[in-house]
This record gives sequence, structure tokens and C-alpha cells, in this order.
Amino acid sequence: MALQIEVELSNRRYPIIIGQGLLCDPNVWTSCITGNEVLIITNSTLAGLYLARCQAALANHRCHTVVLPDGEQHKNWNTLNIIFDALMEQRFSRDVTLVALGGGVIGDMTGFAAACYQRGVPFVQVPTTLLAQVDSSVGGKTGINHPLGKNMIGAFYQPKAVLMDIDTLATLPAREYAAGLAEVVKYGLIYDSDFFDWLEFNISKILAKDTTTLMEMIARCCNIKAEVVAQDELETTGLRAILNLGHTFGHAIEAVMGYGEVLHGEAVAIGMVLALKLSVQQKRLDSSVLARTQLWLMQVGLPTTLPTSDVEALFAAMQHDKKKWASQLRLILLDRLGHAIVVAVTPEAIKLFLTAEVHHVEE
Amino acid sequence: MALQIEVELSNRRYPIIIGQGLLCDPNVWTSCITGNEVLIITNSTLAGLYLARCQAALANHRCHTVVLPDGEQHKNWNTLNIIFDALMEQRFSRDVTLVALGGGVIGDMTGFAAACYQRGVPFVQVPTTLLAQVDSSVGGKTGINHPLGKNMIGAFYQPKAVLMDIDTLATLPAREYAAGLAEVVKYGLIYDSDFFDWLEFNISKILAKDTTTLMEMIARCCNIKAEVVAQDELETTGLRAILNLGHTFGHAIEAVMGYGEVLHGEAVAIGMVLALKLSVQQKRLDSSVLARTQLWLMQVGLPTTLPTSDVEALFAAMQHDKKKWASQLRLILLDRLGHAIVVAVTPEAIKLFLTAEVHHVEE
Repeated sequence: MALQIEVELSNRRYPIIIGQGLLCDPNVWTSCITGNEVLIITNSTLAGLYLARCQAALANHRCHTVVLPDGEQHKNWNTLNIIFDALMEQRFSRDVTLVALGGGVIGDMTGFAAACYQRGVPFVQVPTTLLAQVDSSVGGKTGINHPLGKNMIGAFYQPKAVLMDIDTLATLPAREYAAGLAEVVKYGLIYDSDFFDWLEFNISKILAKDTTTLMEMIARCCNIKAEVVAQDELETTGLRAILNLGHTFGHAIEAVMGYGEVLHGEAVAIGMVLALKLSVQQKRLDSSVLARTQLWLMQVGLPTTLPTSDVEALFAAMQHDKKKWASQLRLILLDRLGHAIVVAVTPEAIKLFLTAEVHHVEE
Repeated sequence: MALQIEVELSNRRYPIIIGQGLLCDPNVWTSCITGNEVLIITNSTLAGLYLARCQAALANHRCHTVVLPDGEQHKNWNTLNIIFDALMEQRFSRDVTLVALGGGVIGDMTGFAAACYQRGVPFVQVPTTLLAQVDSSVGGKTGINHPLGKNMIGAFYQPKAVLMDIDTLATLPAREYAAGLAEVVKYGLIYDSDFFDWLEFNISKILAKDTTTLMEMIARCCNIKAEVVAQDELETTGLRAILNLGHTFGHAIEAVMGYGEVLHGEAVAIGMVLALKLSVQQKRLDSSVLARTQLWLMQVGLPTTLPTSDVEALFAAMQHDKKKWASQLRLILLDRLGHAIVVAVTPEAIKLFLTAEVHHVEE
């Protein structure tokens, strides 16, 4: 059983295939890879779990593998260069297909390597975490970090196909699974109130990782993301910004707490609650949406309150966020369940809001 | 006096402006730069020659400058990172325009930095050498070298505009000017026999750097390159390959002699003569075209014979060239003046040809 979603871009389309046992199926791979040359990029953790089945299914290809160190701290040029070195040493041609077998870090780096090698070779995303499946593997954002900022160096570069094998979620640690669910509920909040209702109704099945439910859930997220991305592929119209609900607060939380201490999805969960609180305070949103969101996040095991009371540090980190080097911060807020808006907020208002929030939590 | 050429791409167009005194003219700059932020990238040699006039003309912008070390050996990630560091430290936003003030190395690196910074910011090419004006600044190829191969890491990324100030050619060393003329005559050979005739007829004015002649010559080259690139922007149909006349031999000569020993244009001049000889040998081309080309190249002071008799080394370097990792080499040959073809040649035939050529020269 597999679902297929088509992502429509300005000049081409590509499939997202969602199913069980995909990685073991040579026909699935053949449908995504045009040439005979394949370089799989994965990390030391995932290699032990999924690499053998991929290599077996790709036995008819000239297939090499690069195993990168695991972790966001390795998302830099030095690690990227390990991929380039392998491509050059093995003399891979422009017909090589890169395969990103892993989470968001592997996907971002592999996509960027594919964008740059010989000025562009095909690549296939094989996201193995829920977060990567519903978020980073769709949309064509690739890149690496600079010491002074995350994802500052990269490319918009779309994959030839995305393979989402639900089997990989079985081994995903509970905390990472929950982190992915933060991005899942985001789609309901910003774009689709029916989907939000569906997530509330199916929460037991989601927590039990019921196969059919997972596939439908992931497919709905990918459909929404693909729809938004298709309307603003290169982030020029601003529509794509709504995907950042909770992310300006979230990035600041990650930066202040130290990357890795708080998972990205956890920081986004807290950030979304803050964005909804601000929406309610500004009388844009009914408070019941905030309450329902908080409940759902807590039920799946996600944090909903600030893990630090250092308002100054949070505020400084928010201003450092790359799109915010202006006099006002542009935040994503909700004006109703299923509909996001971009609102300019003064730094003073943000500071007041964060201070009140910290006091409220401490009381 | 200025000429303007429009480069038509699949989804947009941009101007090439050719004239005198362009760098001193604030209006020219304003027509190419949308935002208020500018980062000029140049090298230590050119900074002393042209930087002051650019900065003066950009006085109304927030303008910073990065001065890179001069030379092809610096076309690597470490040097590229100097640009990223400056962009991050100065907190340049997505509205920044990068300006590539220099030759091919500066243009390739600046274009690639622009392609990658925040996943793409605008850039303007300001080529200061004849080679960069007629070749590398048009076409959207950007990138850096890998220790195992030239230009292996990069992007197809088009500038917002190209400013060609003829004044910069006055200070160009004679040897570099001649090297640029190799690429000039290439356009006549592969695409436009009338232009070849024009180059023969105007050789005295070309050598005297007559302003009107230079502008017409550069404009005709850019027109041809733009026409070819427009038909094959991403190098997918193969048409763009004709621009590589003489380059497979040329790259091998550069590699064997050591980069910098032979200038790129000089190696291309020798490579074109070899390609034309092979075309004559294969009875595709009349020998008069070869003779006229050799004469023209010698008149402008370019070499026309192999600077080494090490056939094994040349042959190995040709096979290492990036697009040739197949069983046959694809060479650009001529079947008449003004018309190039792509021909697959066996390695054995190449080796025989080179051996005979070396013996012939030594005799």
C-alpha cells in the first residue's frame, strides 16, 4: 500500500511516495533514479538501521555510500566536503543520483551537495524521521549552517522524488516522534481547520503509530506544504512565510538553550503556543484555539511553556534571526483556526509580551 | 556612448551594458541595483585600479568591500568563505547586491557566493578583463575548484546585469589581452563566419584597442554567447557544448603545464588549432580555415603549438576532464567556418593524433 502526492513546480513536477517497505523495493528505486550511478549519503546512526536494505534494492546500480557524523553541529562545509571528496574520488559523473537517507540534516546537506556538484545533479530524499517527512524533505530548501547563523548558505533545489517509508518511524525515539508532531499540528493551525479536527479525533491512533493513520497524516501534511510551496517556490511572495508559525520564537529558544538541548520540534511547539497567545492578546484569535492546541501538544508529550526566564537573551536571539534585521519583527499569527497572517510587531511589544509570559509562568 | 544587449532566459532577461566610463556613473549603477545594500568583491590587484571610482559612484548605498587574494589558486571554499563571513558579520540581508569587480575568478566566486547566500541574492558582474567580458561573465556559470578538478562545485546562477567598462582594458597586460582574443575568435569559428571575416579585416584596430572596434567586438561575442546560452541555459541539450571548442585540449595543456604557466586563453588558442587540425584530418573542414586561424592567432601574439611533448600526460589529463568519464571523448570540431559539431572520438584516435602532432612539431 502506498500513497502518491505530486508536487507541482513552475517548470516540473515530482512525486512524494508514502508507504511501507519502500526501501526494500527495487522497483520503487528504479522509478526515481534515471542513471546507473548512485551515492547514498547517511549518518552513522542510520547506516546500521536502513543502509543494508537500500543497498540490496540498488544492487543493479553502481552504488557507493558516504557515512557522515550524526548531528546538527556537523551541518557545515567540512562535512559537505566529505560528500564532494567521495564524488570526485569515485569520479561520479553528472548522471549520478544522490540519495539523502536520514533526517533533516542529511537531507539539507545532500540536497545542497546535489545542487552544487558539477552545478547540479539529481537527488532523492528518503526522510527517516517524522519531522523530515512532514517538513524539511518537501519544499526544496537545502543548505548548511554558518558559524553566525543557521541555514545561511544553501540553495533552493528540488529533489527528483521523495520516498517516505513508514517503517522508519517504528525505530524513531519517542521524543523525536513527538517533535515531528509539532510540525504536523502546525499545518492544521495555519491552513486547514478540518485537519486540526482530524488530529484531535485521531490522537490515540497517532500515538499508537497506526499505519493507515500515519500515512494519511503525513500525506495531508505534505499536500499542504506542497500547495504552499507551489505558490511561493523561492520565498518571494511571502506566502511561504506562514510555514514559520512558532519558528521565530522557536529559533530563539533553541539558540538560548543551546542546540540539541531542546529539539527543533519542541522549540516550535513552545513557539506556536506563544504565537497563539499573542494572537489572542491582540484579539485576533478566539482563546479556545489556544486551549485546544495546548491540550493536543501536551497529550503528545510536547512542552508548551518557555524553558528559560532570560527574556533579554531570547529577545536578542529573535532579533538575530536572519529575516529580522529590520526595525520591526514579522511574526506569523493566527486570525482563526486554519488561517495564518503575517504581522509586523515592534521590538518593544515583543519584549513586553515575553516579560509578561515569563512572569506568568513563574507565578 | 554605450551599447546594450539583452540576454533572454526562460523566465527573465537581463542587460549587458558595454561602454566607457560606466564605473564612474551613479546612474548606471542605480539601474542595476534594486536595494540599498552593496558588497563589492574584488582582488588585491584590481582594488588599487578601479575600486575608488566604484565606491564613489555608489556613495548613496550602504557599501562594503571584500578584497580577495589574486589568482586561480585561491578559487576555493576558503576564499569563498571570506565573502560569507563579511556578509554575516555586516548582517547583510537578502536585499544585498553582490558586485563582482574583476576577472573570471572573481566573477565565478562572487556569482557562487550570491547563489548560496541565504539561498540566493542578486549580483552584478563587472568584468575587467577581455576574457571575462567575452566569456565567463555571460552565461551564468559560477563556482569554485575542487582539489581534484576545476569548477566542479558551483551553480548555474544568472546576474541581474553585466557592466563592461572598456576603460578597464587600457590597463590590462598585453598577454592577458591576447588571451582574451582567443575566446573572441572562437565565436567566429563556431557560430559566425561573418564575424571571423570582420576579425581578420579589423585586426590592426583590435591590436590598437580602438574604442569603437572593441565595443563592437565585445558586443558581437556577447550576442553569440547569449544566443547559445539562451538555447541551453542548464547545459542539458548539448548545444552549449560548442562553446568548448579547444577547451578539452586546452584544459589538458593547462593541467600538464601547471595552472598559471600557460594562461587559459593561450591554452584555448593551442587547443583550437588542434581541434581544427583534427577536423581537417577527418576531412570535415577545409584546410584554409585552419591556416587563417593560425595566422590570426599568431598576429595577436598567441601560441599555436603544443608547449609539451608529453603525450601520456596530456592524454591522461584529457580523460580526467569532467565530462569525459566515459569510454569515448566528445570533442568539438568544425565542419565549416562558423559551424561547430560534437564528435565522439575514441581514446586511441586521440592518442595517435597527439603523438603525430608532437612528432610533427619536433621535426
